[in-house]
Amino acid sequence: MRSRPERRYPIAILTDFGYRDHYVGAMKGVIATLAPGAPVIDISHGIPPQSVAAGAIALRESWRFFPRRTIFLAVVDPGVGTKRRAIAIETAAGCRFVGPDNGLLFPAAESAGIARIVELTSPRHRMARVSATFHGRDIFAPAAASLWRGARLAALGPAIDGIEPLELGRPVVSGNELRGEVIYIDGYGNLVTNIDRASFTGFAARFSGPGLSVKIARGASLPVCATYGDAPKGAPLGTFGSFGLLEIAIRNGSAAARYAAQPGMPVKVHPHK
Amino acid sequence: MRSRPERRYPIAILTDFGYRDHYVGAMKGVIATLAPGAPVIDISHGIPPQSVAAGAIALRESWRFFPRRTIFLAVVDPGVGTKRRAIAIETAAGCRFVGPDNGLLFPAAESAGIARIVELTSPRHRMARVSATFHGRDIFAPAAASLWRGARLAALGPAIDGIEPLELGRPVVSGNELRGEVIYIDGYGNLVTNIDRASFTGFAARFSGPGLSVKIARGASLPVCATYGDAPKGAPLGTFGSFGLLEIAIRNGSAAARYAAQPGMPVKVHPHK
Amino acid sequence: MRSRPERRYPIAILTDFGYRDHYVGAMKGVIATLAPGAPVIDISHGIPPQSVAAGAIALRESWRFFPRRTIFLAVVDPGVGTKRRAIAIETAAGCRFVGPDNGLLFPAAESAGIARIVELTSPRHRMARVSATFHGRDIFAPAAASLWRGARLAALGPAIDGIEPLELGRPVVSGNELRGEVIYIDGYGNLVTNIDRASFTGFAARFSGPGLSVKIARGASLPVCATYGDAPKGAPLGTFGSFGLLEIAIRNGSAAARYAAQPGMPVKVHPHK
Repeated sequence: MRSRPERRYPIAILTDFGYRDHYVGAMKGVIATLAPGAPVIDISHGIPPQSVAAGAIALRESWRFFPRRTIFLAVVDPGVGTKRRAIAIETAAGCRFVGPDNGLLFPAAESAGIARIVELTSPRHRMARVSATFHGRDIFAPAAASLWRGARLAALGPAIDGIEPLELGRPVVSGNELRGEVIYIDGYGNLVTNIDRASFTGFAARFSGPGLSVKIARGASLPVCATYGDAPKGAPLGTFGSFGLLEIAIRNGSAAARYAAQPGMPVKVHPHK
Repeated sequence: MRSRPERRYPIAILTDFGYRDHYVGAMKGVIATLAPGAPVIDISHGIPPQSVAAGAIALRESWRFFPRRTIFLAVVDPGVGTKRRAIAIETAAGCRFVGPDNGLLFPAAESAGIARIVELTSPRHRMARVSATFHGRDIFAPAAASLWRGARLAALGPAIDGIEPLELGRPVVSGNELRGEVIYIDGYGNLVTNIDRASFTGFAARFSGPGLSVKIARGASLPVCATYGDAPKGAPLGTFGSFGLLEIAIRNGSAAARYAAQPGMPVKVHPHK
Repeated sequence: MRSRPERRYPIAILTDFGYRDHYVGAMKGVIATLAPGAPVIDISHGIPPQSVAAGAIALRESWRFFPRRTIFLAVVDPGVGTKRRAIAIETAAGCRFVGPDNGLLFPAAESAGIARIVELTSPRHRMARVSATFHGRDIFAPAAASLWRGARLAALGPAIDGIEPLELGRPVVSGNELRGEVIYIDGYGNLVTNIDRASFTGFAARFSGPGLSVKIARGASLPVCATYGDAPKGAPLGTFGSFGLLEIAIRNGSAAARYAAQPGMPVKVHPHK
């Protein structure tokens, strides 16, 4: 057998299956059976149950750190057993995505450049018996295994034209405020907003003198610092974190607990008074 | 060295060690030391602490999705340091099981066909120093590593005749009811019962006109649907899930929370009134 | 390419990143990209957030179960973005450690024998863009990948003389008591103290007649047993667990819940009255 270095790329898995049950294990068993030797990497299985947006953000924030040809197998699937489609996507960046067509794959695939999409209908690339409730094991894992073994995307099912979008919202300028919202809350309790650095910098350019502050809901105005360490211990601050987005954090503490924050909570950037 | 494709099968691990400590890591370190190159797959380490029945069900529901020769290393071991035996099992299906003899391995091994059992007593296939409290690291992981490297089952210790059973109970017909119970609660809050499809269908055949409903404890009667999506959002239902067993679920919600359910809670199937 | 069996050693990862986010996945993606084929083993990602001492103990208790040349990548890093150094350590035992210089690596590296230390400053062995908040992905993972691929320690940055210590405290004899404290609480609720077997045995030798009891805070005196199974179900006891340290445990229960225990809580060993 010739050496096939191209086959060293991994299958990277992201789900909301949690860590209590054997569901992730069963998916990995299917992959080990159908694609022996395929390296498997867990992105996370702790996405909040049925939170498509949280899964979509985690996938969008991680795909570019993986090898170019990685196959991403993502399952946050509250519509399992309904008419939502099962899909696979090839991208201009080289990576592939497999999962339900409910918006989960959209932000990542869009940022990687959607090149081709198929609906997963081929009976050759799924389990012989497909359950009504566990397509991760019965449809998505076999499809990812087939791609890893070299199946062409077209072998998995017919091409389709578009997928379900998922819009995370963009910040908007309103008077002397740049308005956004919390889109992701991480395990440390950091509140990630949809305010990107370009929007922030563009807004800042409108004001010559003072710097900018950030304010969540009815909270106090917070300084925007270069990093956590610029605030005193226990103090809240704004900072651009590893997402490249404005976060509200508490140094050595949880902003989610302090502000009882939920995704969707409004955030405003404004010049220092 | 000849290529040994048969050695690509994995060691699959299931424990109640949780995700907080280094205990799973220490076991994997032992395997990496004694069986370099062995693929290791996590089934779950989130089995509720010391819940032998939950671990046994998770193992029974997952083993058949793994490669034929897989070695299952399962440790839910409230009796560690007592006289309970340490065992390994070969099965007709080809897979092997390693773990404590407390019922944990029984349902899976029985469904795979128990062919041979040994007690793990050989000092050559355990750590030089065996702690009183961590046999996963000191006895079970080394035994699994030895099997993976090709040791014969008989090398691990003397043959024994039988193992500790674990009976999950079967549903019984009583008058116009099929009576079972909750045996497993998953991370989504779905309540898995011991009512299998054959028992359900056999019971249904006694009634010509109406369909069947399912009822948990003093709750209302619920429809039995083909899948979650057949119920309105937030509504409870019965359905045959990925275990092939009747589950009580709430579409996009947690039945465990709604019914304050525990394993052992009674469930009844009856004809529509 | 010659076969390189020495490259089968793993990169073993320990963090407080938790299991909810994609942070661990992004680190593994970086490793898979920079060191394709490197085996990666999770020790734990469930270290309590920002608890350097808990992470340090978990690492000290696990490193010796791994292959000799293992690279340990440990990140519990409340000071990310401050002036704390990023370091890598070679040890007499053969293993390497990579992580922040905040005490996290100290107990493990000291017990493995510190041979050489460098500060991770080389731009060739980190991501092109280093975020202010995620050095696990941008600095530590690339450094571990480089070491795995064969880079010499000196290539990663300049040698430094010492690292931040982390002292866990030793038990002290005071009158008729041996005094220590809780240093680690595991996921089962076992309370691990800093009282090692040698200190305990030395103290015991001072008393001829009676055995020793252990007492936590204002709790009752507990027997010190060989293993959990020597106590009745539900009863508290002292025992030397898998750390080789005196633990306070409850057979089939949680001592942490019973005693509302926290790290630092005092523990006393005294002769039976």
